[in-house]
Amino acid sequence: MARVLLTGAAGRVGTAILGGLDDAHDWRLLDRDPPTGELTEYEYFVADITDESALLAAMEGIDVVVHLAGDPRPEAPWDSVLANNIDGTHAVFEAAVESGVEKVAFASSNHAVGAYELERTPQIYRTVSDYRLDGSELPRPKNLYGVSKAAGETLGRYYHDMYDLSVVCVRIGNLTKDHPPIDYERGQAMWLSYRDCAHLFDRCIRADYDYEVVYGISDNDRKYYSLQPARDVLGYDPQDNSADHD
Amino acid sequence: MARVLLTGAAGRVGTAILGGLDDAHDWRLLDRDPPTGELTEYEYFVADITDESALLAAMEGIDVVVHLAGDPRPEAPWDSVLANNIDGTHAVFEAAVESGVEKVAFASSNHAVGAYELERTPQIYRTVSDYRLDGSELPRPKNLYGVSKAAGETLGRYYHDMYDLSVVCVRIGNLTKDHPPIDYERGQAMWLSYRDCAHLFDRCIRADYDYEVVYGISDNDRKYYSLQPARDVLGYDPQDNSADHD
Repeated sequence: MARVLLTGAAGRVGTAILGGLDDAHDWRLLDRDPPTGELTEYEYFVADITDESALLAAMEGIDVVVHLAGDPRPEAPWDSVLANNIDGTHAVFEAAVESGVEKVAFASSNHAVGAYELERTPQIYRTVSDYRLDGSELPRPKNLYGVSKAAGETLGRYYHDMYDLSVVCVRIGNLTKDHPPIDYERGQAMWLSYRDCAHLFDRCIRADYDYEVVYGISDNDRKYYSLQPARDVLGYDPQDNSADHD
Repeated sequence: MARVLLTGAAGRVGTAILGGLDDAHDWRLLDRDPPTGELTEYEYFVADITDESALLAAMEGIDVVVHLAGDPRPEAPWDSVLANNIDGTHAVFEAAVESGVEKVAFASSNHAVGAYELERTPQIYRTVSDYRLDGSELPRPKNLYGVSKAAGETLGRYYHDMYDLSVVCVRIGNLTKDHPPIDYERGQAMWLSYRDCAHLFDRCIRADYDYEVVYGISDNDRKYYSLQPARDVLGYDPQDNSADHD
């Protein structure tokens, strides 16, 4: 079992991951909010991710970091994403290298590339469109949150190239429980089910890779993100499709 | 004549630009250091670029911003590039949009892509290699300064896409006066003469563009950056070549 630190563990992505992979790995959690409910059963650090000494303590003996912490609001103001998402992600990578961590899976976002949709809406969200982003394209954020996620990806590239850390950046789509967003084409195009989310991060923990940018969505008929890199590099095999919930 | 604000005007790139284009545009300068020498003859604002109200005052009536300000050291520590280069560049773009500026030329750097050289040294610096970067590739910084420049480029993309600002990011090579670096193959590959530097930024001020990433080097035989995008988009026509100084 891999010893895995989950930052931002109390958030929605963390909930999906722990719900699906509770017994699969040896978890340690970190969040700036204290644990509630089932989270009280885990080894748990309450700390801000810009707190370097707390990060080093939390990473002691850790093999893999799944870095989810950050301001998750697409409309978050610059000061918050600068501190929590950009500075915080730098602190996580820095501590990972210093702690001898082998891999970091970084929760990036569809918002890193949201502006590709600008001239293609709503066709891009429909099955008639075969337009695909595959992770090799330059970032095009539609908000400052997306800028911060793109900056985190570049930090990951740097820490891979210079410190040989394995880094995968997962541009997470629209994670919702039980069923995809209703009457929201964009959300259905980039839906990520809880089950596929847990499986995807399990593959990020287990697979071997150098530096990769992959899209984190279910196998939706409406998709405009290619799943091929995630399948090829990670062995991702999604089971859900928003079209099955019409 | 365009009314142009030059941030970081007292630095080396600013010196090359003003030296070549003194009479070509209606200049306003901004630097956090007070003016000395010939700079005292210009309209001059002493301010830090993270000072929003000073930026707004300096951009009043301005058509084009040439944004050079930032910590220029490749070895600069994270805290400095986070504040001066990432936060500072955000402040400049934000003020530009608020002030109705039409274009921003952003001084990015070869360091945004320095790690592409890692497995290709020293062949990449020699004329036998026809390997070329052209600005469509993802950033691969070899230092945190390069990370900060890549983040500035993504900010430019965002302000172009969402606010229709014309933005050109110039990945500046190795700017030296009079002659290229001696006994330094990398420096000769990415040499930018003062004359070509002034001409390149003159084209950034005059040309029409949407969002572009171009390389700022002279037409060196040793080059591994393509000059085609700068030629096509800006009408850049470099006159110098480090090979002529052998």
